Amino acid sequence: MTKYFEPNHTTCINKLSGVFAGKLVTSKAVCDQHGTDESFHESHSPDAVLFAHSKDDVVRAVTICAQYHTPVIPFGTGTSLEGHVAAINGGVCIDTSKMNQILAVHQNDADCVVQPGVRRMQLNEHLRDTGLFFPIDPGADASIGGMVSTRASGTNAVRYGTMRHNVLSLEVVLANGEIINTARRARKSAAGYDLTALMIGAEGTLGLITEITLKLYGIPEAISSAVCTFPTVEDAVNTTIATIQCGVPIARIELMDAISISAVNAYSGLSLDVAPTLFMEFHGSKQSVQEQSEFVCNLSSQFGGSQFKWTTRSEERTQLWQARHDAAYACKALRKNCEIMATDVCVPISKLAECIKLTQQDIEASALLAPVLGHVGDGNFHLGLVVNPNDQSEVKRACDLHKRLVNRALEMEGTCTGEHGIGYGKIDFLEAELGRSTQVMRLIKQSLDPKNIMNPGKVINLET
Amino acid sequence: MTKYFEPNHTTCINKLSGVFAGKLVTSKAVCDQHGTDESFHESHSPDAVLFAHSKDDVVRAVTICAQYHTPVIPFGTGTSLEGHVAAINGGVCIDTSKMNQILAVHQNDADCVVQPGVRRMQLNEHLRDTGLFFPIDPGADASIGGMVSTRASGTNAVRYGTMRHNVLSLEVVLANGEIINTARRARKSAAGYDLTALMIGAEGTLGLITEITLKLYGIPEAISSAVCTFPTVEDAVNTTIATIQCGVPIARIELMDAISISAVNAYSGLSLDVAPTLFMEFHGSKQSVQEQSEFVCNLSSQFGGSQFKWTTRSEERTQLWQARHDAAYACKALRKNCEIMATDVCVPISKLAECIKLTQQDIEASALLAPVLGHVGDGNFHLGLVVNPNDQSEVKRACDLHKRLVNRALEMEGTCTGEHGIGYGKIDFLEAELGRSTQVMRLIKQSLDPKNIMNPGKVINLET
Repeated sequence: MTKYFEPNHTTCINKLSGVFAGKLVTSKAVCDQHGTDESFHESHSPDAVLFAHSKDDVVRAVTICAQYHTPVIPFGTGTSLEGHVAAINGGVCIDTSKMNQILAVHQNDADCVVQPGVRRMQLNEHLRDTGLFFPIDPGADASIGGMVSTRASGTNAVRYGTMRHNVLSLEVVLANGEIINTARRARKSAAGYDLTALMIGAEGTLGLITEITLKLYGIPEAISSAVCTFPTVEDAVNTTIATIQCGVPIARIELMDAISISAVNAYSGLSLDVAPTLFMEFHGSKQSVQEQSEFVCNLSSQFGGSQFKWTTRSEERTQLWQARHDAAYACKALRKNCEIMATDVCVPISKLAECIKLTQQDIEASALLAPVLGHVGDGNFHLGLVVNPNDQSEVKRACDLHKRLVNRALEMEGTCTGEHGIGYGKIDFLEAELGRSTQVMRLIKQSLDPKNIMNPGKVINLET
Repeated sequence: MTKYFEPNHTTCINKLSGVFAGKLVTSKAVCDQHGTDESFHESHSPDAVLFAHSKDDVVRAVTICAQYHTPVIPFGTGTSLEGHVAAINGGVCIDTSKMNQILAVHQNDADCVVQPGVRRMQLNEHLRDTGLFFPIDPGADASIGGMVSTRASGTNAVRYGTMRHNVLSLEVVLANGEIINTARRARKSAAGYDLTALMIGAEGTLGLITEITLKLYGIPEAISSAVCTFPTVEDAVNTTIATIQCGVPIARIELMDAISISAVNAYSGLSLDVAPTLFMEFHGSKQSVQEQSEFVCNLSSQFGGSQFKWTTRSEERTQLWQARHDAAYACKALRKNCEIMATDVCVPISKLAECIKLTQQDIEASALLAPVLGHVGDGNFHLGLVVNPNDQSEVKRACDLHKRLVNRALEMEGTCTGEHGIGYGKIDFLEAELGRSTQVMRLIKQSLDPKNIMNPGKVINLET
């Protein structure tokens, strides 16, 4: 791809390279890497990458970019799934990976303050001796800044909520280079508009996050995981629905269909029974964990579930959940030279079984390979569509299937994205989902970023 | 008070009375009542009150008001505490009490859709046979619309979160009369800016809420309440801190100091021991409730707590919590012809004991009567400052104490309001708390309500 430098971008980058000697990189390899995420969408390389070391670096860089109307694209680990990091209009990528300090852990308040480049596994390793942990776990070892920006969640959301529920406050550099703090460290507040929530899921389009105050949780006294297979996906989903409806405070309840299980067996060297499967985890006191798991065990047997296979040993649990987290990579390994097109609908749980059933029929009719896996406790499931990017007919069939899936979810009062976000991949779906609300988003974007320099072309198009 | 009609407001109201025959009231008594809430702040009567029966009424009324730049002030039950309903610039109050339909209960999804005039107790009575309940419980029997608008919480927030955590979606009439839906009914979503969260706590300044989708919870299998007295407030707070830190999923943990207890005994005909007291409630399975309560019982004895007094019978529990909810009225009854000036700071829990101790010293030095009570599990506490509004010196001492209290909380990384909101009473405190963030709020307000007709003068001043 030949790069097209807007003349003012060139001036901007020259100015930045004077200010940030050694931190600004314009090599093609580095730029290409920073315009690429783990999605199926086309990459777009930025014109330069700034490895920011501090909030001051961010403030100075954004201020200069604002002067030249040069786009600013934040980058954490590049594991986003809707083209969030693509520099659609060129510009400067601000890589936050050097801003990876855990600034404070307030053990008595069960919160911590981190820089955006801290990764979720790094945080939990750091916390280990405190008896606290941070539960949100997207598949990848993502950065906390990226997780805030995409309103990420993962396998624990059914118990601990999503990023929306676990950020107390943010420090944000706005499009004019100004720095704000969205809230205090108190557990709750009714102080004005909820700017914290507004920035969570804004994908860097309203500002660049430079500090995050997160809620933490006590590591449960007891944890046990169980695996249970079912005759059909519907039985597994119905077990999930019953579990949630009975108010069991289950920590994780994850569905994988038979194809996903095969993929994971092959990729992670496991020997799980190849059938629709629920992976579950229970957190609490020893007594409570036992009570919960017995209750769900009984429930699942009513839906034809197998005997529970227990894993209480920490290493076994880790292996099991690592396999679950690697499921996307496992799906990709099912066919050579293929890419994964990941879908992400979320529906009210009462509609989940029907939505998955119709979707599986659609997959079969479309002659596509698409393992189903999901955070079924929240009504959220993914297809890992395994697609040969060089087979245009297959790509089209996959895209068409995806559209039908989103429309099906919308008809069921669901959303096009439970946790991946909009990026530039789902802008049309967002319009279909929320209609005139996107005009409100546009007004907010224009008021906070009148030059449209903060990650332009993501979440909403401004032309409409 | 003589009313000053802006000429265009008069035209507007004439037009409205043509459209809304029988629903529009301009009598002084009704207008005065609608400009008054339960706060210490001065009332401001609207020029007219529209009893809206439907979202169409709201759309038509807002559209006409927008045409004449006439303010629109939403009204639920008038139980707000920071002058939220005061018609500072006159205008039309939209009373939503006739919009009190529960439109749907989705039992399998544990959610419901309600109109804004539904009251919290009405909702829970309606839900009783479904086995579900809605936990958020501010002191008053407030409307759900008002609770959304002020980001209310109450005694259950330590377990179930605040309104921020329990609204799935909103239907909102914007300042231009347009209607939007902020989200779908799915449990989680990463679809664009979180407009639901933005509207929660916006106090009607960004739009008027006409429909609310709420999360519900299963009524726990077992509930038990306990009362425990302590030698000092600090001991009670330290018991709370230890309980939270140990991860006990306690449903309620409420502090009342000795003066509050006296007040409640007198007002509600109880005979509680007059000492710093924790009111607690445990939710879960029978086994889990027993385990939790034994654990906290042991903890509290380490801090000099008395034997727990148990109340497992439903009527006793109801009486106890009704007394707790009536505490503000009980404080008011302590002195004749006095008003309550309610404070609402919230601090990180590690600072709570110190904050309360310093505040109690300050109360004593100020020669004021101010019972302390609070949702201590969240770090949130209230003073019910009992003030004679005709004693200017006392009013000044109370205001000065309040300022010092807020500054103390801010120095401790806390907030000026845990759950009451800003209204027009705390605008200056909000500026002190969030600084430049209020400028972002101002930009958002101006972009969504360029004529400043939606509850003007609340949350932020636009002149600054």
